[in-house]
Amino acid sequence: MNKDLISNDIQLDSSGKLIHLLGLEGLSKNHLTHILDVADGLLDAQGNLKKSKALDDMSVANLFFESSTRTRNTFEIAGKRTSANIINVDLANSATKKNESLLDTIHTLKAMQIDMFVIRHKQSGLPHHVAENIDGVSILNAGDGINAHPTQALLDMLTIRQHKQSFEDLSIAIVGDITHSRVAHSDIQALKTLGASDIRLIAPAGLQCDSKQCATIKCFDNIEEGIKNCDVVMVLRLQKERMLEADIPNEQEYFDNYGLTPERLALAKSDAIVMHPGPINRGVEIDSSVANGKQSVILQQVSNGIAVRMAVMEILAGNS
Amino acid sequence: MNKDLISNDIQLDSSGKLIHLLGLEGLSKNHLTHILDVADGLLDAQGNLKKSKALDDMSVANLFFESSTRTRNTFEIAGKRTSANIINVDLANSATKKNESLLDTIHTLKAMQIDMFVIRHKQSGLPHHVAENIDGVSILNAGDGINAHPTQALLDMLTIRQHKQSFEDLSIAIVGDITHSRVAHSDIQALKTLGASDIRLIAPAGLQCDSKQCATIKCFDNIEEGIKNCDVVMVLRLQKERMLEADIPNEQEYFDNYGLTPERLALAKSDAIVMHPGPINRGVEIDSSVANGKQSVILQQVSNGIAVRMAVMEILAGNS
Amino acid sequence: MNKDLISNDIQLDSSGKLIHLLGLEGLSKNHLTHILDVADGLLDAQGNLKKSKALDDMSVANLFFESSTRTRNTFEIAGKRTSANIINVDLANSATKKNESLLDTIHTLKAMQIDMFVIRHKQSGLPHHVAENIDGVSILNAGDGINAHPTQALLDMLTIRQHKQSFEDLSIAIVGDITHSRVAHSDIQALKTLGASDIRLIAPAGLQCDSKQCATIKCFDNIEEGIKNCDVVMVLRLQKERMLEADIPNEQEYFDNYGLTPERLALAKSDAIVMHPGPINRGVEIDSSVANGKQSVILQQVSNGIAVRMAVMEILAGNS
Repeated sequence: MNKDLISNDIQLDSSGKLIHLLGLEGLSKNHLTHILDVADGLLDAQGNLKKSKALDDMSVANLFFESSTRTRNTFEIAGKRTSANIINVDLANSATKKNESLLDTIHTLKAMQIDMFVIRHKQSGLPHHVAENIDGVSILNAGDGINAHPTQALLDMLTIRQHKQSFEDLSIAIVGDITHSRVAHSDIQALKTLGASDIRLIAPAGLQCDSKQCATIKCFDNIEEGIKNCDVVMVLRLQKERMLEADIPNEQEYFDNYGLTPERLALAKSDAIVMHPGPINRGVEIDSSVANGKQSVILQQVSNGIAVRMAVMEILAGNS
Repeated sequence: MNKDLISNDIQLDSSGKLIHLLGLEGLSKNHLTHILDVADGLLDAQGNLKKSKALDDMSVANLFFESSTRTRNTFEIAGKRTSANIINVDLANSATKKNESLLDTIHTLKAMQIDMFVIRHKQSGLPHHVAENIDGVSILNAGDGINAHPTQALLDMLTIRQHKQSFEDLSIAIVGDITHSRVAHSDIQALKTLGASDIRLIAPAGLQCDSKQCATIKCFDNIEEGIKNCDVVMVLRLQKERMLEADIPNEQEYFDNYGLTPERLALAKSDAIVMHPGPINRGVEIDSSVANGKQSVILQQVSNGIAVRMAVMEILAGNS
Repeated sequence: MNKDLISNDIQLDSSGKLIHLLGLEGLSKNHLTHILDVADGLLDAQGNLKKSKALDDMSVANLFFESSTRTRNTFEIAGKRTSANIINVDLANSATKKNESLLDTIHTLKAMQIDMFVIRHKQSGLPHHVAENIDGVSILNAGDGINAHPTQALLDMLTIRQHKQSFEDLSIAIVGDITHSRVAHSDIQALKTLGASDIRLIAPAGLQCDSKQCATIKCFDNIEEGIKNCDVVMVLRLQKERMLEADIPNEQEYFDNYGLTPERLALAKSDAIVMHPGPINRGVEIDSSVANGKQSVILQQVSNGIAVRMAVMEILAGNS
């Protein structure tokens, strides 16, 4: 599916209320800020997560067609902390193997009283296709192909907001495999919506963003140049599982040219924060000492990931 | 195990109270009606499921030796909606691989304070064997070989009862692979117990019921003839996974001869309902437009499946 | 890792309070007795398990790197009975496959608000390594290599204490594959700490304990001799999965020489109890009639296993 053809229109009802979370295009600054505010309210002063009863009578199904224990766990934990029933549907042995179509599977689960579906799929636009064809349930996109990963971008925004005053004056560098990263795509969209004016994409030629997107943001193939004086460094994972064999860079060479080392980080502002969506390839895209260093907010991102997913579930359930 | 040798006697205690659900033979009309009444009470006026606290202090283990995500999910959801603890025992990696016998596994789980076992197994009579050899727990048959699938038949009966006044005057056509269908077997038993007088089995010669069963019901190999003026059309899945390679019919040929098309459905009464246990093979045993049509009650069957399983669990727990 | 180099020191805080459970070396008789007392309090007069709310606001992750459905189930059931949220982390598909280190995985789960980790791993000392490198969570060793299996030993002690007055005067025979048994290792330690003076290890030469351990306990290669007049017979499983192909004894031969038969059991005291950690290889290490016999307390061990794991979780959570 062509990325340009994927529309998020259906995620808002006629009054502008969020009823699915498919992607960040089409959401206003108010929409994003409301989600971040609800998430913040789920954290106590020490950054620990509270529990809520918001989904006490609801059931959520995790439909992960791409394996990702980490992200599935975050939705499972987030769901349980809102008191929802969580069903992890075992897709390897599911009815889709018996020729049942995906939509039939989801209609069937809806008839079993599932209220919300968390979907990860390698096909861009698949969650949108589901949302267009089934009423009365909420669809939450947990990553579709190279299209979008909205909850990851929202947790990234929450983390930035906890450290920086406003998005308007920030310089943000995103380093790595832009081409294959739905995270980068959603982060760029969120940063634009929240008003960030200086977004820099740092990548080798083969992994840089396409020309159209780049029209409004700055592209670098030199990390030292791109990182200079920035406030936030977002490091991306090498998504080897989405690359052709021939395109996978040599890891040592990649680290030599793009790895975030203490020396490179020193070129950013002294209070710059270092982010990574995880899981980390230490010594490939980031030096171990930087990942563990005091500018790293990587584990805070993880906690915020639970809060943001709880917030989105509560909002979709109509309870926040 | 010979089907004729499988007795359900053990499922009733000396006072006639249900303590296991192994099959429908041996249950009275009162038993069935009570289960349907309890299930009905778990649905609100809109057909949505209520929650109950009936199994609040109990634990239920799902033991699925045949993979079936759909049916396992229904029992998991039903169990959670009655507030039970649900354990999905991972049989692929279980102790049975370490030479432990099945009965030892179940005795061990009982000692871990499991109160109820939901068992699906390819061997007919296996749940009965377990029930005979272990006291103080309830066994719930979720499908054993080609013998029985009592909760499927009960949800079918609940669905029929929601649409038709009484079973006595109904004409019910069951279409498809009768031979390999424990669903058909249990449905026929339930319909007889509830007083249905006109049961018709429609199947090609190789998939028709055995002569003994047929003695009391009508068999057809022509669907147009069998379906005429009936009130209920129950379509069965082709159970390819239980057929020898050589016996699997050509799908197009099967659809041409036995698929439920709008034209064929028009031969039934105009208010006939269309049922299917799922998952559906669209274009094989049923035309897509019929599965989605306004006479189809297939998704209602799914919701009723949760209600019926909740009801059976509550009754076995002694709480309904 | 050399067993002698594995220290449990870190499991106690500076005031001697248990903060992890890694192994039984280093725990006092008071520590063990407190755990057994808490476990006993979780059983009613009939030996049935009570529920508790002790971990109501907590989350526990099951990290089983060695597959063991049975032990994983016991921790899952124990956790649910203390009202904890339980996450079974799917390690086959986990982030460790994406090059993430084990410590990164655990730090990430901690950031997701997991409070306690139950770890089983084939590498001796792995849970200790984790405990040394992560603060603010509790580590519960569910079996590490051939080193330790502390909750199994504790449930064994609870079972013995329920049948015998005091440990001081008991004669306990442990029969079987001592070499590969972390259960035997932890049982011996627990028995010593609780004051048992007559511990006998019965095994063929190749499966007997190493000389150092044997210095303080009695070793036998003849079961008739070793079992004589003992109060407790603990039978071990043949751990074939941990043996080299060439070392696996012929099963019939093993049974002939070391299997616990009624005749051999008759050499013990008439009120001796028979124990086995499960799963049982009937006809290999124990005769079926002995496993089912009235001196067998094997299923009671299973129930006690839930109680002991609940007790340890409550104590580590600071609530008992």
